[in-house]
Amino acid sequence: MKVVVLYEFTAQPNSGELSIYPQETLTVTRQDIGDGWWEGFNSRNEKGLFPAEYVSQIPEVQAPIVTSPNSNHDAWNAEPNINPKPSLVSFSNPVPIVGGGNQTNPSSPPQTIEQYDGDWGDDDWDDDDSQASEFTAGGEISSSMTPHNQLAPIHVGLPHHKQQSQQQTAQTVKKSINRFSHFVKSGGEDYILGLKKFNVNQHDYIHIIDDNAIFKWSPSYFSYSVSVENPKKESKMKGLKSYIAYQLTPSDTGVPVSRRYKHFDWLHERLQDKFTTIPIPSLPDKQISGRYQEDFIEGRRIQLQSWVNRICNHPVLSQSTVWKHFITCKDAKQWKNGKRRAEKDELVGGLFFLTIQVPENATISPDTEPKLDKFSRFIGKMDESTKNIYNVSQEMSKRYQSFYKREFLKTSNIFSNLSEAFASSPVQSNENELLIQGINKTSSTYESIGKLFDEQHWADFGPLANLMHEYRGVLTAWPEINQVYKGAINKKKEHKKAFDEGRLDENALTGINKRADVVTYATLAEMNHFEEERVRDFQIVMRSFLVGQLSLYQNIVKHLEEALEAIPPEQ
Amino acid sequence: MKVVVLYEFTAQPNSGELSIYPQETLTVTRQDIGDGWWEGFNSRNEKGLFPAEYVSQIPEVQAPIVTSPNSNHDAWNAEPNINPKPSLVSFSNPVPIVGGGNQTNPSSPPQTIEQYDGDWGDDDWDDDDSQASEFTAGGEISSSMTPHNQLAPIHVGLPHHKQQSQQQTAQTVKKSINRFSHFVKSGGEDYILGLKKFNVNQHDYIHIIDDNAIFKWSPSYFSYSVSVENPKKESKMKGLKSYIAYQLTPSDTGVPVSRRYKHFDWLHERLQDKFTTIPIPSLPDKQISGRYQEDFIEGRRIQLQSWVNRICNHPVLSQSTVWKHFITCKDAKQWKNGKRRAEKDELVGGLFFLTIQVPENATISPDTEPKLDKFSRFIGKMDESTKNIYNVSQEMSKRYQSFYKREFLKTSNIFSNLSEAFASSPVQSNENELLIQGINKTSSTYESIGKLFDEQHWADFGPLANLMHEYRGVLTAWPEINQVYKGAINKKKEHKKAFDEGRLDENALTGINKRADVVTYATLAEMNHFEEERVRDFQIVMRSFLVGQLSLYQNIVKHLEEALEAIPPEQ
Repeated sequence: MKVVVLYEFTAQPNSGELSIYPQETLTVTRQDIGDGWWEGFNSRNEKGLFPAEYVSQIPEVQAPIVTSPNSNHDAWNAEPNINPKPSLVSFSNPVPIVGGGNQTNPSSPPQTIEQYDGDWGDDDWDDDDSQASEFTAGGEISSSMTPHNQLAPIHVGLPHHKQQSQQQTAQTVKKSINRFSHFVKSGGEDYILGLKKFNVNQHDYIHIIDDNAIFKWSPSYFSYSVSVENPKKESKMKGLKSYIAYQLTPSDTGVPVSRRYKHFDWLHERLQDKFTTIPIPSLPDKQISGRYQEDFIEGRRIQLQSWVNRICNHPVLSQSTVWKHFITCKDAKQWKNGKRRAEKDELVGGLFFLTIQVPENATISPDTEPKLDKFSRFIGKMDESTKNIYNVSQEMSKRYQSFYKREFLKTSNIFSNLSEAFASSPVQSNENELLIQGINKTSSTYESIGKLFDEQHWADFGPLANLMHEYRGVLTAWPEINQVYKGAINKKKEHKKAFDEGRLDENALTGINKRADVVTYATLAEMNHFEEERVRDFQIVMRSFLVGQLSLYQNIVKHLEEALEAIPPEQ
Repeated sequence: MKVVVLYEFTAQPNSGELSIYPQETLTVTRQDIGDGWWEGFNSRNEKGLFPAEYVSQIPEVQAPIVTSPNSNHDAWNAEPNINPKPSLVSFSNPVPIVGGGNQTNPSSPPQTIEQYDGDWGDDDWDDDDSQASEFTAGGEISSSMTPHNQLAPIHVGLPHHKQQSQQQTAQTVKKSINRFSHFVKSGGEDYILGLKKFNVNQHDYIHIIDDNAIFKWSPSYFSYSVSVENPKKESKMKGLKSYIAYQLTPSDTGVPVSRRYKHFDWLHERLQDKFTTIPIPSLPDKQISGRYQEDFIEGRRIQLQSWVNRICNHPVLSQSTVWKHFITCKDAKQWKNGKRRAEKDELVGGLFFLTIQVPENATISPDTEPKLDKFSRFIGKMDESTKNIYNVSQEMSKRYQSFYKREFLKTSNIFSNLSEAFASSPVQSNENELLIQGINKTSSTYESIGKLFDEQHWADFGPLANLMHEYRGVLTAWPEINQVYKGAINKKKEHKKAFDEGRLDENALTGINKRADVVTYATLAEMNHFEEERVRDFQIVMRSFLVGQLSLYQNIVKHLEEALEAIPPEQ
């Protein structure tokens, strides 16, 4: 079978993968690799694995017109591809995926999981290493790969792709052809279509409550906080590699654990994979907020603390197993086991919805869809605004430390030069002496004010920039969450039509509706959580920003008053 | 006689003058023009008048090595040129210049004084016209020119130059060969050598008092102030020409007079010509302190007011006839007469010293010379410093109106965008509404703060820049004043040596010493006046600067406090 490449894919080194380029023709040699991978060779006779999603079979289906993989975000507007000659859909016998301990790993491209040591390899304190190279050493295809006969596996790792399964040919309401829709990629579609079953443990359930027709995540039973403190430079490999470890102490246990940025990064990925409708705030990036290493480390500590607070405040995230493991596990072996368990967690992506318990007898108001549409537009505006605030704040932070500081130093200098000149006059009088002292005081005052600006960014524009950074992670994730929601309600509409036309039985429709409603409830719950958080966060940040600014200018006033006192009054 | 041109001289149009260029050879046709002018023609057969000072006779005397006319300031270090074969000097019969009403006019190059109308010609409000072209319309050589046989006329107009008079050949202690020394140009040398006599009227006398061995200008009998107010745009020639007239009101008469910038400029020139040891503060120049015409006019009014105050505070300048004429004369005809009288004033330059009455029985302390040397170095430092302050202040004034204003507007904008985004959320709550209002208040606060900066320069850096500007006029004049002093004491030393060697009689020496001491007393009096003024001026400006800055930052604090109040407190 010949296929044409739609999207570029870059092979991991030594992974058995094949780099492929758009327009290229490939010959497929195996389709039974599993996990969405096919094997084939290109015109240069290079052989290897590539994502089946990234290619299109030449004689059969035309790929949708997608200008680039980045146009994903518009995909939820696309109409679902309905078979022009529909027949009755049978959902009677979906192949269940049964949960259990020693599950195969459905995430990530083929890699030798056994090879990584739970110690994250080595890195410098600035976390510049690419995690990918760390994870793919070895390159053999793992024997733990998903067998071919598994039905439409969910892919939550990178690259996101999905196997076109032959088992689905019976369906008349087809899965979306847009392979890059987040709805599809996340497994949301498979969930809606009821293609996923899983025995969910009681303790994995997440509840949504109906608070006067406002749907919310059920609040956590107890709240706690986690402090991020004492960043320490540590090293290994006899000092060849050094990194910063932060001490995390949950308020309930009081037992500190040591975590590196890389651990946060891993956690962030787990949370993103698992919580399909919950946007995860961004971790601090490599943007430095201070010029010195100490400033950098302290700046990052503050950002990590804020990130940790945000997780603690989230009723779902704060109760998740992976998070609790992250903030409590001290033992190296247990850490390794917990880590592996988290990576093998199957209740991720689309299956996440299986864990959600919605309020009984609740109804979804008819204005929900326009409301969520409006919310998405609001998120777009807020994303623009936070980007803008972030940029201006970063700029101001830097300017405080350079330009503003220099401005005041310049004023300081003109006065110190003046008093020097005055001291050289041959006509020295008491008045002249007092004037010189006064001018010197003015000069040192302006120097002090300049120094105020040096540290000022910690108090106003810094925290503002940090919040914006966190929010941007949340805001940029929303369009994909919205895609899943839109995908779900479109599927619902589509199947309603199929039912109306007698192409679907009522049972199947009820199942679809129920599952689509779970997605809606979860989206609403997260929207409401977001909105509560937003109002609180911005109240706090506006106050702290203004307090920071106020204290700067009050300080300046105090300094200037002292300088004025030192100038002799007019006789 | 052939001469070579040493310095460039540009002829006034239609004046009968000849433009001459360095290295050019001229043929002299007349040396009896008077007032320091010779007539001759160049290689292109162009004929006209040129300053005899600017050329050197080819076969006879080598001109001193002077790189450019601007090297004047070093000239006072030059050794006086003592005749190697001295004989006894006779000062017994100097040719006196007798004062009187209808004197010839010894100032300025040939020009048709009768032709200018006392109305100053036309100019635009920005005074861009060159005054020169106004004064020289006509171009015939006036019949009122100084006759050839007058001894060594004093030139106080432009260009400064001096006639080498044949009558001085009897002297063995020669006049300085450096024709560009300010000591010589100002007529200071002629005065010291006793070559000038004049009957000074009682009311023209200027007294120096001995205040515990500190020599001071005798304080004025009564002090007064002059307000500069109500700048008005006026026009003439049926509106073709417009200008700004300021209303000057002396506090003692209360009668306002109307003066234009050009009148100030004329006055400034008169004062500079007359008061050889008194530096005259600079008038406001074309540097604008505001962007709009209104700002420009108001800025200039403030500067003129300050300049007028400075004249009023000076015990000598405030009592001068030309100044009193300037601030009181209302009648057009009287104004014209007074103006002409001032221009014909002969007690200018070197003759100014004839009007100075020094304290009897006073002695000049031996540390006077090093003290005045130190003072000159101090003036140099202060000149540097004021230049620096002026530049930074101008820069800051501009920056307040542009950069700083923009900075705060930028901060205002990020918040107004944010509140707009928040208003578009579908989840509207009372908390959100209050937050939006709070953020809007913050936004308008930053806008108001930006506007504070727009007008701020009037309160701090503007007045600072203005004072520096005035002082620079004073400071840059000092080196020439110091030259006159150094010239005087060098002449004194030189004649003491001549006396010691029996080449000078005691009478002549006493005369020289007395006159040199007058210069010393006057220089000390002005130094002491300067120093008193300086301490007072800088006390005032430092206080007003700090008060201006303080009020800015207090205003910012007030605004920020209001903004903070508008943000709902954390629940």
